[in-house]
Amino acid sequence: MDNSLLTNIANLDVGRLTRNGFHEVVFAEGKEIDHLLRICRSVLDQGRNLFGTRTTPDVGKVLVESIPKLDYDPVSRTFQLIQQPLPLRSATLAILAAGTADIPVAEEARRTAQFYGVEAKRFYDVGIAGLHRLLSVIDEVRMSDCVIAVAGMEGALPSVVGGLVKTPVIAVPTSVGYGTNMSGQTALFAMLTRCAEGVSVVNIDNGFGAACAALRIFSAKTSKKV
Amino acid sequence: MDNSLLTNIANLDVGRLTRNGFHEVVFAEGKEIDHLLRICRSVLDQGRNLFGTRTTPDVGKVLVESIPKLDYDPVSRTFQLIQQPLPLRSATLAILAAGTADIPVAEEARRTAQFYGVEAKRFYDVGIAGLHRLLSVIDEVRMSDCVIAVAGMEGALPSVVGGLVKTPVIAVPTSVGYGTNMSGQTALFAMLTRCAEGVSVVNIDNGFGAACAALRIFSAKTSKKV
Amino acid sequence: MDNSLLTNIANLDVGRLTRNGFHEVVFAEGKEIDHLLRICRSVLDQGRNLFGTRTTPDVGKVLVESIPKLDYDPVSRTFQLIQQPLPLRSATLAILAAGTADIPVAEEARRTAQFYGVEAKRFYDVGIAGLHRLLSVIDEVRMSDCVIAVAGMEGALPSVVGGLVKTPVIAVPTSVGYGTNMSGQTALFAMLTRCAEGVSVVNIDNGFGAACAALRIFSAKTSKKV
Amino acid sequence: MDNSLLTNIANLDVGRLTRNGFHEVVFAEGKEIDHLLRICRSVLDQGRNLFGTRTTPDVGKVLVESIPKLDYDPVSRTFQLIQQPLPLRSATLAILAAGTADIPVAEEARRTAQFYGVEAKRFYDVGIAGLHRLLSVIDEVRMSDCVIAVAGMEGALPSVVGGLVKTPVIAVPTSVGYGTNMSGQTALFAMLTRCAEGVSVVNIDNGFGAACAALRIFSAKTSKKV
Amino acid sequence: MDNSLLTNIANLDVGRLTRNGFHEVVFAEGKEIDHLLRICRSVLDQGRNLFGTRTTPDVGKVLVESIPKLDYDPVSRTFQLIQQPLPLRSATLAILAAGTADIPVAEEARRTAQFYGVEAKRFYDVGIAGLHRLLSVIDEVRMSDCVIAVAGMEGALPSVVGGLVKTPVIAVPTSVGYGTNMSGQTALFAMLTRCAEGVSVVNIDNGFGAACAALRIFSAKTSKKV
Amino acid sequence: MDNSLLTNIANLDVGRLTRNGFHEVVFAEGKEIDHLLRICRSVLDQGRNLFGTRTTPDVGKVLVESIPKLDYDPVSRTFQLIQQPLPLRSATLAILAAGTADIPVAEEARRTAQFYGVEAKRFYDVGIAGLHRLLSVIDEVRMSDCVIAVAGMEGALPSVVGGLVKTPVIAVPTSVGYGTNMSGQTALFAMLTRCAEGVSVVNIDNGFGAACAALRIFSAKTSKKV
Amino acid sequence: MDNSLLTNIANLDVGRLTRNGFHEVVFAEGKEIDHLLRICRSVLDQGRNLFGTRTTPDVGKVLVESIPKLDYDPVSRTFQLIQQPLPLRSATLAILAAGTADIPVAEEARRTAQFYGVEAKRFYDVGIAGLHRLLSVIDEVRMSDCVIAVAGMEGALPSVVGGLVKTPVIAVPTSVGYGTNMSGQTALFAMLTRCAEGVSVVNIDNGFGAACAALRIFSAKTSKKV
Amino acid sequence: MDNSLLTNIANLDVGRLTRNGFHEVVFAEGKEIDHLLRICRSVLDQGRNLFGTRTTPDVGKVLVESIPKLDYDPVSRTFQLIQQPLPLRSATLAILAAGTADIPVAEEARRTAQFYGVEAKRFYDVGIAGLHRLLSVIDEVRMSDCVIAVAGMEGALPSVVGGLVKTPVIAVPTSVGYGTNMSGQTALFAMLTRCAEGVSVVNIDNGFGAACAALRIFSAKTSKKV
Repeated sequence: MDNSLLTNIANLDVGRLTRNGFHEVVFAEGKEIDHLLRICRSVLDQGRNLFGTRTTPDVGKVLVESIPKLDYDPVSRTFQLIQQPLPLRSATLAILAAGTADIPVAEEARRTAQFYGVEAKRFYDVGIAGLHRLLSVIDEVRMSDCVIAVAGMEGALPSVVGGLVKTPVIAVPTSVGYGTNMSGQTALFAMLTRCAEGVSVVNIDNGFGAACAALRIFSAKTSKKV
Repeated sequence: MDNSLLTNIANLDVGRLTRNGFHEVVFAEGKEIDHLLRICRSVLDQGRNLFGTRTTPDVGKVLVESIPKLDYDPVSRTFQLIQQPLPLRSATLAILAAGTADIPVAEEARRTAQFYGVEAKRFYDVGIAGLHRLLSVIDEVRMSDCVIAVAGMEGALPSVVGGLVKTPVIAVPTSVGYGTNMSGQTALFAMLTRCAEGVSVVNIDNGFGAACAALRIFSAKTSKKV
Repeated sequence: MDNSLLTNIANLDVGRLTRNGFHEVVFAEGKEIDHLLRICRSVLDQGRNLFGTRTTPDVGKVLVESIPKLDYDPVSRTFQLIQQPLPLRSATLAILAAGTADIPVAEEARRTAQFYGVEAKRFYDVGIAGLHRLLSVIDEVRMSDCVIAVAGMEGALPSVVGGLVKTPVIAVPTSVGYGTNMSGQTALFAMLTRCAEGVSVVNIDNGFGAACAALRIFSAKTSKKV
Repeated sequence: MDNSLLTNIANLDVGRLTRNGFHEVVFAEGKEIDHLLRICRSVLDQGRNLFGTRTTPDVGKVLVESIPKLDYDPVSRTFQLIQQPLPLRSATLAILAAGTADIPVAEEARRTAQFYGVEAKRFYDVGIAGLHRLLSVIDEVRMSDCVIAVAGMEGALPSVVGGLVKTPVIAVPTSVGYGTNMSGQTALFAMLTRCAEGVSVVNIDNGFGAACAALRIFSAKTSKKV
Repeated sequence: MDNSLLTNIANLDVGRLTRNGFHEVVFAEGKEIDHLLRICRSVLDQGRNLFGTRTTPDVGKVLVESIPKLDYDPVSRTFQLIQQPLPLRSATLAILAAGTADIPVAEEARRTAQFYGVEAKRFYDVGIAGLHRLLSVIDEVRMSDCVIAVAGMEGALPSVVGGLVKTPVIAVPTSVGYGTNMSGQTALFAMLTRCAEGVSVVNIDNGFGAACAALRIFSAKTSKKV
Repeated sequence: MDNSLLTNIANLDVGRLTRNGFHEVVFAEGKEIDHLLRICRSVLDQGRNLFGTRTTPDVGKVLVESIPKLDYDPVSRTFQLIQQPLPLRSATLAILAAGTADIPVAEEARRTAQFYGVEAKRFYDVGIAGLHRLLSVIDEVRMSDCVIAVAGMEGALPSVVGGLVKTPVIAVPTSVGYGTNMSGQTALFAMLTRCAEGVSVVNIDNGFGAACAALRIFSAKTSKKV
Repeated sequence: MDNSLLTNIANLDVGRLTRNGFHEVVFAEGKEIDHLLRICRSVLDQGRNLFGTRTTPDVGKVLVESIPKLDYDPVSRTFQLIQQPLPLRSATLAILAAGTADIPVAEEARRTAQFYGVEAKRFYDVGIAGLHRLLSVIDEVRMSDCVIAVAGMEGALPSVVGGLVKTPVIAVPTSVGYGTNMSGQTALFAMLTRCAEGVSVVNIDNGFGAACAALRIFSAKTSKKV
Repeated sequence: MDNSLLTNIANLDVGRLTRNGFHEVVFAEGKEIDHLLRICRSVLDQGRNLFGTRTTPDVGKVLVESIPKLDYDPVSRTFQLIQQPLPLRSATLAILAAGTADIPVAEEARRTAQFYGVEAKRFYDVGIAGLHRLLSVIDEVRMSDCVIAVAGMEGALPSVVGGLVKTPVIAVPTSVGYGTNMSGQTALFAMLTRCAEGVSVVNIDNGFGAACAALRIFSAKTSKKV
């Protein structure tokens, strides 16, 4: 690819992600490292903030070495480049994860929300095979403005939670599981087939998307207060 | 089935649907007409309201003949039995449908919202194959608190709308289409794979579920105002 | 089909079902009414017992009219022809059903167990979207020798129950649900992907098979006591 | 991930696996080596027993080097850390494997049962393409309390065995095969579609789950003897 | 459709089926009754033989009423119009069916072979869940020139037979079964995944195709004798 | 493989691709490097042109080192060996790509067209989530003789474009996307289910095939002008 | 549905189909008869032309009885209401159908083309199982400007034709076939996987879509001639 | 795995493959190199012949280095260890391959037949996209006793061949192709859906199985001649 084309693409790429308020985000999966560095440096030079998802530890390491200001988190596989103060919102978000293997997706949601000014409260390892744990935190979950429920395998957590709280519940199926989990499709279908009572769903492993859906809800609230 | 068991089930059935604020709803598909009549009469006697979904015209006709107060709508295949004033909420909901064949699902959402006190604004036949129609109403859509976008076939409407508005967008895939629409699965998957920017999805043809998701969002807003 | 071939088949058919102790059972689905009557009369003449599954109300009516002794149950779609005292077993079996639509499958299991001498205890409408109902009966469930858990939609009931009891749990997915339930496959896969802790599964809508699996367990127990 | 979070997770993880009597088990697949070592050492310090599944030879080697007491088995890909005497149960368990490629899954079941006090009897390479081998051992199989039948490809072994014995039969499909075996789904579906006579099924390649199902059956027996 | 076009099609249709020695066959499924009658009468007038498959009893009745010479068989859903002596071949063909529900497909194969001069020997209800029945006839099966093995559900019969005989084995999966039989796909895949030792397979429910494959084998033999 | 066989194959291979005017093309995926070099050298010696697709950068590097005349492009993964002047055609082709990740497939189409004498105009990053970009170029797109529209994820771009232009539109689904994109199948099905108005589709990621379809259209035009 | 809404929809519906030159078409499948009649009468009153697809014979009969001018064709299940002279185009279109069962889809394509001014030449029953028929007409096919190839079952006809002609080939898979044809998906996939040399594909059974794609090609040609 | 168990398995493994005349064959895929070497050496010591399939070049190299007598072929990925004269049969077998990428599967069939005494005649690169090549050899193909037709992509070769010859045709789908070939499933389904006229099919990429099916046919012929 000749240079000018690549530069052009890098520009477009960031530009494309600035629509609808979900700006300054780059999806790193499948992008070459040179391409990513060019995007990061361009944002760095302009003194803006940047958030990146699906960034493997190897890539993260290279980014941090090149741009020490950049903060990479290996659990959520996201990075942040913060040069301007993050916004602050008063909304409360509860993020639930069924098992330890669902934590990376939950953390992707949490870090995304954080970048847009919402600090989420974590409730991890509250899967339905150990109901006592979920029941011991459910009162606290109920007090949040919005719930993100992350679960793999049979994906039942959002259904149970949806039956216990009245706030919006966004379900995130994960590809966690073996054999018949079908790379997350079983959890996805299980979540959809039960969602008659108002639980909505995002794509498999899409913690970022769940956070964006929550942010749209908070945004609606804020814009109405005026 | 002996009589006492059936009575028992009828009771349970309504009881089961009163959780989480989504009460007084009966899902008629697959239920025998006697069973449905028993539920309706029980609610009638108690002077309460009742909402019913997935009710075929044949069944609707029998219900209306038995209970003249009951209002059946053949487009949305829903019925309402109103004996107490419906609540009134100030939230604004926009319901978009891509094609005329998607209208029944859109109307199921509209009638559900109406039962819970939200009057929705309709924008039908605004599918992406005729962009001018969508673009001519988009400013009005933008001013609503929440958008429900209903589409079959390739299911692209919610993606386009999600790129044009900042409010919550709830996508409803429909089973409208032929050959490779796979009974709505193509629309469903298309909606999920694009939802990175915060569009969330409910089950195929699930207008009721979409309305419930919208109601949870409005509910969150209201409960916070206090 | 010439007469001798048909007679031959009728004989074989019953013969085929007398293996492994699960004898005197006829699967009516797809069988012509003449064929079924021939089997029933042959058993009647020999003074034996017979159990039939997947028998539609229309067929059941014809059978009862021809053979008044025959007892048909429209909920489970099974019939019994009892001419010898049923066995009696001391084992206790708990049958759970998630929703009212799962009851026919649960009843097929209950009637099967009954035919082989086991009276089951019913716990219906205990699905996970209303946890309080399940929790209010779980202590009684725990005291049974074996649990059959029937659920459609997202199929999460057996997982939750499996986490709360130590006895064998046999999961039965049902084809109850819409859109992404995939005719029961979603519930089936959800049950399998979670069964690491010893919940085993039978085919979709197979209440008969679940009862047989329970009977094998009870049989093992009994044969060892000697 | 900060340290305290990781420690927290390790604790939770073991804690999560101690429910329902299936305690002290860790599922190694997808866990990082540091995480596993932390769990093992924590158990070591407390003088308890631990069982691990889905542990690759590379990981097994590291574990054994760090904790020489730990016993790793490359065929079943399981490890045991035994510091207290294992329980002893009088139940007899027969484990059948159709082909040599099914042995790893069968061994996972055998080692799991062993950890919980049940010594299983092995009948390997008894697939239906060579009936004489199965028939020559079937009398011995019949005398066991429970049968686990492991098979890939067309998955017919459990059906044949279920027709020859009266004890509980737990079927385990494996992902062994090529082309149309669909990563084990063909064997799974074949096992389910034939299980009318009381054979129940666990997830693909889930030897651990099959052993747990057998242990639930034995547990039921024992608890009733009192 | 104008008349000349339809006549044209009728001519073509029979013409199309006279290639490769598999002539004078008409596949009735999906054809309108007028179209079928026109084909039959055209063959009748020319004094030739005709064989028809997939003909429902209703259609068969109309055909027989119009053309009394025509012989319709409701089990195999085939008809024969014989006006010239059938050929006679010395080849021996064994047709096995696993269950009674597989008999229609087996009979379609038998009637097809008969039309082309091969009288088949039937071995029905020899499914693998009752091995004794299969084993009691296997010596007779071994003596045939070719074996057609018909099975639904888990489709294991051809694998077992293929392991016991050295002659060609043609497997026919049927759509018999429930839940996970996937309309015959499970049986099909099970047969294919096991066919390493020379069992070949035809399409689901395709008794006609299996007979044709056998006839090709016999034809090869005959042509070589010269 | 003995040498003469391999030579034979190399010859055949090129030979096979010279049918229908789509000559001198080699599909490199799955071919061994020696095999490819032999083909290239054979063409080099004969002074002809050659086009290659699906050539990884590693392979491309080896080819260029051996045959410096050969021009390899890492974005489209194609190579050209030009020894005779390329043809020149006056047809205009517009190639649209929805996202940056769809560019490699779009470039494969562009380079293919170029090899056959058609210079395409690029419109990249015009996906439907940012309608303004598409709308800003649509007038220019309309003036082309044929449009190739490349899109992954939900694959909606060709539908939108098909609604805005009257020229032939060839849709290319790509395997770009996550979770429910199903390796491009969702985009493929979405494109097909919407193509009622004359958009036709080629295989997933098949930029080469799309260009060939365009060339057939241009060819028809040219041949008619005479 | 209240009257004004229905009128509104009828208007919209026709309106929606007038985009991109594919105007005055109504897709009857799934539309209620009253709705269709209203559309037809509205067009009748305005003296315009109308084309309808997917119209069952029962519906067709009602339409003709109400509007005698309307011409219904039961083979293609289409109707035409001609009140103004059809356009005339000089382009030549060849329509091929593999078997007699594919004729309805081929005729839908032919009637669509006719409505827009293109008289197609029919080549039916030229499937690949009888190559001589195809080869005997191929020279005539080659002389057309565009080829539509319709095939069910294994869908190989377009591949063979694509290898024999240089003009554009549009492939239409049909749902004709049994067992593994998967309602046309096998033919669809077979056509796509082979289309490397420029054959493009429309949706299953979509004769209308294929004709529209051909018309776009002809349209391109015409517009350039000016 | 302890030594005695492994020895045991090696013995069993060869033993298992000596049934039904298809003896002395080892399927190398998935077997560890030590295991394979042990089998080979055991056969070497006993002076018998051995045939191996699915052996990668890396494994083949190790085998040849250890046992120089062993003959490894990288195209078919098979090896032969010949210590006794191969049988000789007079049967003629034609093996057709559609494209060059199908050659490895075709060669697996050829080498298998050779090991059992049948020399096959090769007709490679005769796919239907270049009919002239197939037609130029079809007379020679017709003279063989049996045809094996290997094809990937759309898998149409066996259908065409089946329409041109009267001998048995065994179809082998291959996993060759991209996008919608679905790892060979499209070719498999295409072959099955067309096999009404007596073409039978083996598993995807199963050249070995096809040869075995041919050998069963030859065997039937031979045994009858006596």
